[in-house]
Amino acid sequence: MSSRLTKKSARSKPKPHATALWGGHFAHAPAEAFAAINPSVAIDQRLWREDIEGSLAHATMLAACGILTKKEATVITSGLKKIHHEIESGRFVFKTDLEDVHLNIESRLKEIIGDVAGKLHTARSRNDQVTTDLRLYLRREMEALNDALKSLQAVLIKRAEPHTDTIMPGYTHLQPAQPISFAFHLLSYVEMFGRDRTRLEDARVRLNQSPLGACALAGTSYPINRNMTAKALGFDSITASALDSVSDRDFVLEIAAALSITAMHLSRLSEELIFWSTPQIGFVRLHESFTSGSSIMPQKRNADGAELVRGKSAHIAAQFNGLISMMKGLPLAYNKDTQEDKRALFFALDETKLCLSVMTGMIETLDVNASAMRRACALGYINATDLADFLVQHHAVAFRDAHHITGKIVKRAEEKQIALEAVSLAEMRKEYKALSSAVHNFIALDACLARRTSAGGTAPVQVKRAMKEARKQWL
Amino acid sequence: MSSRLTKKSARSKPKPHATALWGGHFAHAPAEAFAAINPSVAIDQRLWREDIEGSLAHATMLAACGILTKKEATVITSGLKKIHHEIESGRFVFKTDLEDVHLNIESRLKEIIGDVAGKLHTARSRNDQVTTDLRLYLRREMEALNDALKSLQAVLIKRAEPHTDTIMPGYTHLQPAQPISFAFHLLSYVEMFGRDRTRLEDARVRLNQSPLGACALAGTSYPINRNMTAKALGFDSITASALDSVSDRDFVLEIAAALSITAMHLSRLSEELIFWSTPQIGFVRLHESFTSGSSIMPQKRNADGAELVRGKSAHIAAQFNGLISMMKGLPLAYNKDTQEDKRALFFALDETKLCLSVMTGMIETLDVNASAMRRACALGYINATDLADFLVQHHAVAFRDAHHITGKIVKRAEEKQIALEAVSLAEMRKEYKALSSAVHNFIALDACLARRTSAGGTAPVQVKRAMKEARKQWL
Amino acid sequence: MSSRLTKKSARSKPKPHATALWGGHFAHAPAEAFAAINPSVAIDQRLWREDIEGSLAHATMLAACGILTKKEATVITSGLKKIHHEIESGRFVFKTDLEDVHLNIESRLKEIIGDVAGKLHTARSRNDQVTTDLRLYLRREMEALNDALKSLQAVLIKRAEPHTDTIMPGYTHLQPAQPISFAFHLLSYVEMFGRDRTRLEDARVRLNQSPLGACALAGTSYPINRNMTAKALGFDSITASALDSVSDRDFVLEIAAALSITAMHLSRLSEELIFWSTPQIGFVRLHESFTSGSSIMPQKRNADGAELVRGKSAHIAAQFNGLISMMKGLPLAYNKDTQEDKRALFFALDETKLCLSVMTGMIETLDVNASAMRRACALGYINATDLADFLVQHHAVAFRDAHHITGKIVKRAEEKQIALEAVSLAEMRKEYKALSSAVHNFIALDACLARRTSAGGTAPVQVKRAMKEARKQWL
Amino acid sequence: MSSRLTKKSARSKPKPHATALWGGHFAHAPAEAFAAINPSVAIDQRLWREDIEGSLAHATMLAACGILTKKEATVITSGLKKIHHEIESGRFVFKTDLEDVHLNIESRLKEIIGDVAGKLHTARSRNDQVTTDLRLYLRREMEALNDALKSLQAVLIKRAEPHTDTIMPGYTHLQPAQPISFAFHLLSYVEMFGRDRTRLEDARVRLNQSPLGACALAGTSYPINRNMTAKALGFDSITASALDSVSDRDFVLEIAAALSITAMHLSRLSEELIFWSTPQIGFVRLHESFTSGSSIMPQKRNADGAELVRGKSAHIAAQFNGLISMMKGLPLAYNKDTQEDKRALFFALDETKLCLSVMTGMIETLDVNASAMRRACALGYINATDLADFLVQHHAVAFRDAHHITGKIVKRAEEKQIALEAVSLAEMRKEYKALSSAVHNFIALDACLARRTSAGGTAPVQVKRAMKEARKQWL
Repeated sequence: MSSRLTKKSARSKPKPHATALWGGHFAHAPAEAFAAINPSVAIDQRLWREDIEGSLAHATMLAACGILTKKEATVITSGLKKIHHEIESGRFVFKTDLEDVHLNIESRLKEIIGDVAGKLHTARSRNDQVTTDLRLYLRREMEALNDALKSLQAVLIKRAEPHTDTIMPGYTHLQPAQPISFAFHLLSYVEMFGRDRTRLEDARVRLNQSPLGACALAGTSYPINRNMTAKALGFDSITASALDSVSDRDFVLEIAAALSITAMHLSRLSEELIFWSTPQIGFVRLHESFTSGSSIMPQKRNADGAELVRGKSAHIAAQFNGLISMMKGLPLAYNKDTQEDKRALFFALDETKLCLSVMTGMIETLDVNASAMRRACALGYINATDLADFLVQHHAVAFRDAHHITGKIVKRAEEKQIALEAVSLAEMRKEYKALSSAVHNFIALDACLARRTSAGGTAPVQVKRAMKEARKQWL
Repeated sequence: MSSRLTKKSARSKPKPHATALWGGHFAHAPAEAFAAINPSVAIDQRLWREDIEGSLAHATMLAACGILTKKEATVITSGLKKIHHEIESGRFVFKTDLEDVHLNIESRLKEIIGDVAGKLHTARSRNDQVTTDLRLYLRREMEALNDALKSLQAVLIKRAEPHTDTIMPGYTHLQPAQPISFAFHLLSYVEMFGRDRTRLEDARVRLNQSPLGACALAGTSYPINRNMTAKALGFDSITASALDSVSDRDFVLEIAAALSITAMHLSRLSEELIFWSTPQIGFVRLHESFTSGSSIMPQKRNADGAELVRGKSAHIAAQFNGLISMMKGLPLAYNKDTQEDKRALFFALDETKLCLSVMTGMIETLDVNASAMRRACALGYINATDLADFLVQHHAVAFRDAHHITGKIVKRAEEKQIALEAVSLAEMRKEYKALSSAVHNFIALDACLARRTSAGGTAPVQVKRAMKEARKQWL
Repeated sequence: MSSRLTKKSARSKPKPHATALWGGHFAHAPAEAFAAINPSVAIDQRLWREDIEGSLAHATMLAACGILTKKEATVITSGLKKIHHEIESGRFVFKTDLEDVHLNIESRLKEIIGDVAGKLHTARSRNDQVTTDLRLYLRREMEALNDALKSLQAVLIKRAEPHTDTIMPGYTHLQPAQPISFAFHLLSYVEMFGRDRTRLEDARVRLNQSPLGACALAGTSYPINRNMTAKALGFDSITASALDSVSDRDFVLEIAAALSITAMHLSRLSEELIFWSTPQIGFVRLHESFTSGSSIMPQKRNADGAELVRGKSAHIAAQFNGLISMMKGLPLAYNKDTQEDKRALFFALDETKLCLSVMTGMIETLDVNASAMRRACALGYINATDLADFLVQHHAVAFRDAHHITGKIVKRAEEKQIALEAVSLAEMRKEYKALSSAVHNFIALDACLARRTSAGGTAPVQVKRAMKEARKQWL
Repeated sequence: MSSRLTKKSARSKPKPHATALWGGHFAHAPAEAFAAINPSVAIDQRLWREDIEGSLAHATMLAACGILTKKEATVITSGLKKIHHEIESGRFVFKTDLEDVHLNIESRLKEIIGDVAGKLHTARSRNDQVTTDLRLYLRREMEALNDALKSLQAVLIKRAEPHTDTIMPGYTHLQPAQPISFAFHLLSYVEMFGRDRTRLEDARVRLNQSPLGACALAGTSYPINRNMTAKALGFDSITASALDSVSDRDFVLEIAAALSITAMHLSRLSEELIFWSTPQIGFVRLHESFTSGSSIMPQKRNADGAELVRGKSAHIAAQFNGLISMMKGLPLAYNKDTQEDKRALFFALDETKLCLSVMTGMIETLDVNASAMRRACALGYINATDLADFLVQHHAVAFRDAHHITGKIVKRAEEKQIALEAVSLAEMRKEYKALSSAVHNFIALDACLARRTSAGGTAPVQVKRAMKEARKQWL
């Protein structure tokens, strides 16, 4: 089938490339299969704003450097602004046979202002143009991402605030380990999303350099001023090597990696929300507006939002993998393989932003069941460490021995199926005769919580301080 | 921003889920962010044909088992056929707030035939429905893939046919190794794409089992006949465990892996086309209809088609990675994460089919430069192995010594910058005195080629046999 | 540092490659950095058995075809057997400067039998040798994998046997969905691991073809008999193209993909074991011998075994990714990149086998807490579907309405925080006046379970049948 | 097999965990399979230096805070120093049944100083200990990486220096595009490896924060001073959340991503070296000491070093993938899955360092064939852009028309199979009558090169400036 298709198309259309701006010496039109694989405009049209922005800066510079006349620059500028308006108002039709956003706009420019449009392409190539556009676009996207991360941090802090004394099991290995507060738990995610923001900030430094003027790969003989366009477009500086400028997609990879890590953080919080929402745990209840029911099971309230975020995180991370394999082993300079960078990155960007907004909504609206959290602490002997500490601190038992004695008292509690604090003093003394009666106060859950006052610890006093710090640093 | 958005949406819309078929006990509408992440209809609407097909079989079976009346089944059947017609003719509007293809069709069915539509969902759940649909869809896609692979094999064999004597350098490590024929080279890809076909065939066996009737996860108390629907839908058998049936996405992973391998094969052939097309190599010239030019460099004829195939291969393979990470660590049975399987797999399917059709077209239309291929054999001392073999076979020199002597003669050729066959007998005899004058005939390129007659070897006689075998096996 | 290192080594060692069998015309020794990256013997020495096996078959064939004398073959054979014995008994020293397992053995052979050793390499190259060895090795490994999968299936069935009536919550979205039995749950994994076995079987067909005699890439002029070595080595047939034979690593990729899927299955069961082991769920208790404690928290019994399996599954799957990216875009025929296939695949193999044995042990030894499972069914209104079914079946209510009424009764239960079966008839009748008093019997958990008798369903009678089938099919 | 194995081990060894420091309340020894999967000491023993370093700082702090007596601290310190000495001198035996580097050292400490050793573990857990060790280790590794990258940059600049006038084809799509210099080409890699260094620098900021004192997950009730240990260990600050501290592996992921990008850069340069080394291209010749020969083809000098670097780059990148999938969906805090982070990261680190040293050596020692480079420019009409520019600049032809005219002149050259500069003026004038006779000087290769003086361009004057800048910035 595909064979017949291409045979026909490749052989039977000896008409020239009517539309392709590069098709001067071509006698044949693209084959149908090629016409299906080659264009990128469905993907890259979202760069239209940056493409026009870049062209405006380029035209202004060309005029300032005497490469265009002022008149030519004015005509080009007004043509570009007209196109901007057309696209913004939805009247512009992107055509697939014009390949990409750049040729679509250039072609329309020619329709509007005539042959002078061609002069805009002086001292520029699609190779430096596309990477300029993409950098500008990503700069904006990273601001949007930063805002979304900040919103999520704000919601986490807001929801944490009333819960510095809300005791829940802190888990390691999904086994109850030590009592912590719900506020403490939420704040740990504020740290993760904070790191994500700094990672984007760092990536921005490498991103925000202007490749414009690198031209095809070797620079140009026109007396251009790259610093002028760089400044006009808000770049911090210009790239150092023209060859590297058109070959480089590090900034795409770096953002893809950063998004993968953010998505992974979201997947962890999703996992917890799903676990916390199962009836036997019941620590939280997601708001109905982020769940769905079942067409067959009337009782269901499924944490679809969290599951979708968790599922999407896998695919977001896979984009890095696709991108780095795409770049692997490519000789310099530009290769068409690179065209495939945008779909992958835009997917990761869009999905991460969507996941962030869903997570922000879920956290903002969930109901907290503090009593379920506290009840859960009765299981799992969560204050066993404190019992051991009591032996060390009040009875000067060596920690290793204290660990051993506690293990035995835990066994007694296990056999009676009661919480550790419910084991009577008499019973405990069977394992350590001299045990002080202060032990029960010491291992009370609230006492355990309040005691962990080390920097970064879960004690309410400490968490309140951390919350204040977090507000100052991140919001 | 996202925070504000969800706040509003989650809190301020206490109206019920108007459309959701599962929303009976829900007091709140979906939050805006949730409404953006939850629906899959944009992706899964391509399953409409299979969804209707599955429903028709299900209705017929329900009637046969006395679960529906004949009348009910007739009404449902005619309603479904009407919807089939509506969609086929482009008059059906898929609605995002109806989530997925299943609810879109079910909802329309209710509009057409009223409440009896609800009975279609007896003894069925979306969990078994979606995997049934997907399996049916993939069965078709795998046939299309098989056809596309077969077309490519056919073109490779067709283009190989006149080239059993066309000598080119066989490379290892991209260094000339031994002379081979262009036909021999192309046929090696016929083997690769042949393996791809058998891999799809094997995957089909596991795919082609009916999960319909697994219901939500545990089977049903209705007296259904799963074998009946299985047979009606062309499945080979029914799945053994209801729980596994709705949890399993192995068939998705297996196809994704198979596509990755096919795409990798395509990427290798692409790499070769690109290498062969660079002017200094010049073994082939891609037809203009699969290349593009440059907006700035008028002489360019870039192998865009091959580069895009190579680039896409990375992203096709990345889907396996996303999918397996998505499935990793999911508890049974159905989790919403799984909804993300379709975008990834459909992307891999679509791209692989596109790449196959582009490759088929490129191979079919490329020009072969046999003289460039032969010229290239003069470089790289490609017949050095044969010179060593001559010493072994005609002079009974041990291979290890022959290897050493040949190395020295190669050095002499290198110093004079001439081909090995251009080194005079006198010169050669400086390294091995008794060398027979038959050596030059022996190391002539055509003689080297003709001599490798072992099974699977590059000798024309052998390649012709292989070509015949390949035709029989694959076409 | 690295710079200084290589400078010294590259420039200052003009002594010849003493050991390299290919070094005849080389004037310089390998640079230190190259000597560190080039050898593969640390990885590939595990192929020693297959390397000798292949050489023995090759020597026998060469003699049968008159390429070696019988005497030469005998000498070579006895030398190889001696080496086999040396390695098996641990007396053989693999040397890094001899690069790989092949040259180590060839070099030792020369020490033992002298120059005739060189004749073994007639009509063979390391290119076909390494892939022959690897195929033989993998054939064995796949048998070991099959056995390990079978053992796990056997243990799953054995542990399932007494639990066809052990009711537990069947989850979807980690929310209780419908009651199922523990046996039914375990059996669903038997299906997964069964598919894994068939996948290996299919891969074996493509694997088990002999590439021996493909030589460097083009076949050979020696009158070899490839079918003879193929038969001697237990291959089903010979590969069709010499060029493909030395370029192909599909069999590596296919096994890597299969292992990824197996590891994913293991990760899901691990996730469940971890979830089931957390005290609030408490469905199972892993045997102490598969858990570890905490150096600080005396009460801990962590499911380390399951967590490690889950963690390793990610890295096993990543090998496919590394391998396919490694192969992507490689021109034919052999490239040294391919040398990196073994570490990745062996890692995946070893880890998967380890994970299988850990999982088998964990399942075999875990304690089942049937009463915790049953208790959990009281939460989550797991019999809500059955209540709706009752309305449909006994009162002829349309399913959609039944779903709605049930939703309301669930709300009543929710408000009282009781199980659905604990809602009084009077209370239920507030939502559906005519409700039959048979409802409570109908929605009793055991009744719900017993009723799902459809093929593949959870009813004990059905699960017993499935278990019998599974034994027959898999054990 | 595995089944029998675990059965025996799990059931028949009721002796206690003799060695495990956490095994106080355990009645059973680890099963054999568990004993095989659980220990990490084979991997993490390379952290010994950092483990002791961290313990020394911890002990000093505990004493300063009055938690240990001065005497205890002194005893512990001298014990740790003894162990340091033992390991450094190779006399320390790491035992697998002691699980990891931490317990190996702690256990040995107890042997040396007795029970007081146990006090070292006060206010510390393996959870914060392992991440502290790993951060310290990675800080060192990143310095080593930085040095290796710098060495490579130095070699690239050194080799570039004499080649600012060495003209070679600049490729896009592997088609000759414009003439560039070899120096210009090498310098573009200096930029890439420079970015790699800044990426490591940025990662270091997030890495270099002390988690020590986070303890198991919640902080501690002991009056510790986290800032004191942080300062002693050279950390910039302490982490903010104890829970996050023990759950976080972002720094591992971030470094894995950075290594992937570095390896990708290396793979591109490798691809070029391989391409440049094939005889028909012949731009460079790798030094023998970085190549190998063939056991069968005496003429071969294969670019094994470059191929291995390219192959390894795929596997280095795959580690990110494995790591992120491993972290995906893990609930807080520590889970044993995370133990698998080290093998993957250490592999990526070791391989990247190895690849860097091989690349540095290859670049340092390669021979440049300037005349082959220049000859290659005659093919591919590499100065076509300049011809078009000439028409624009000297004849005021619109670029679009100039592009078209040039395309036609290229066709004429193509037909005659001559270089563009070899087309006579008369012939050129057939396409543009008024063509100035200055055209041939204008399109001479050196003139083309010299003319591209824009910032970042390939003109020798510009490249010399860039080289100076690069030296200043990077060396």
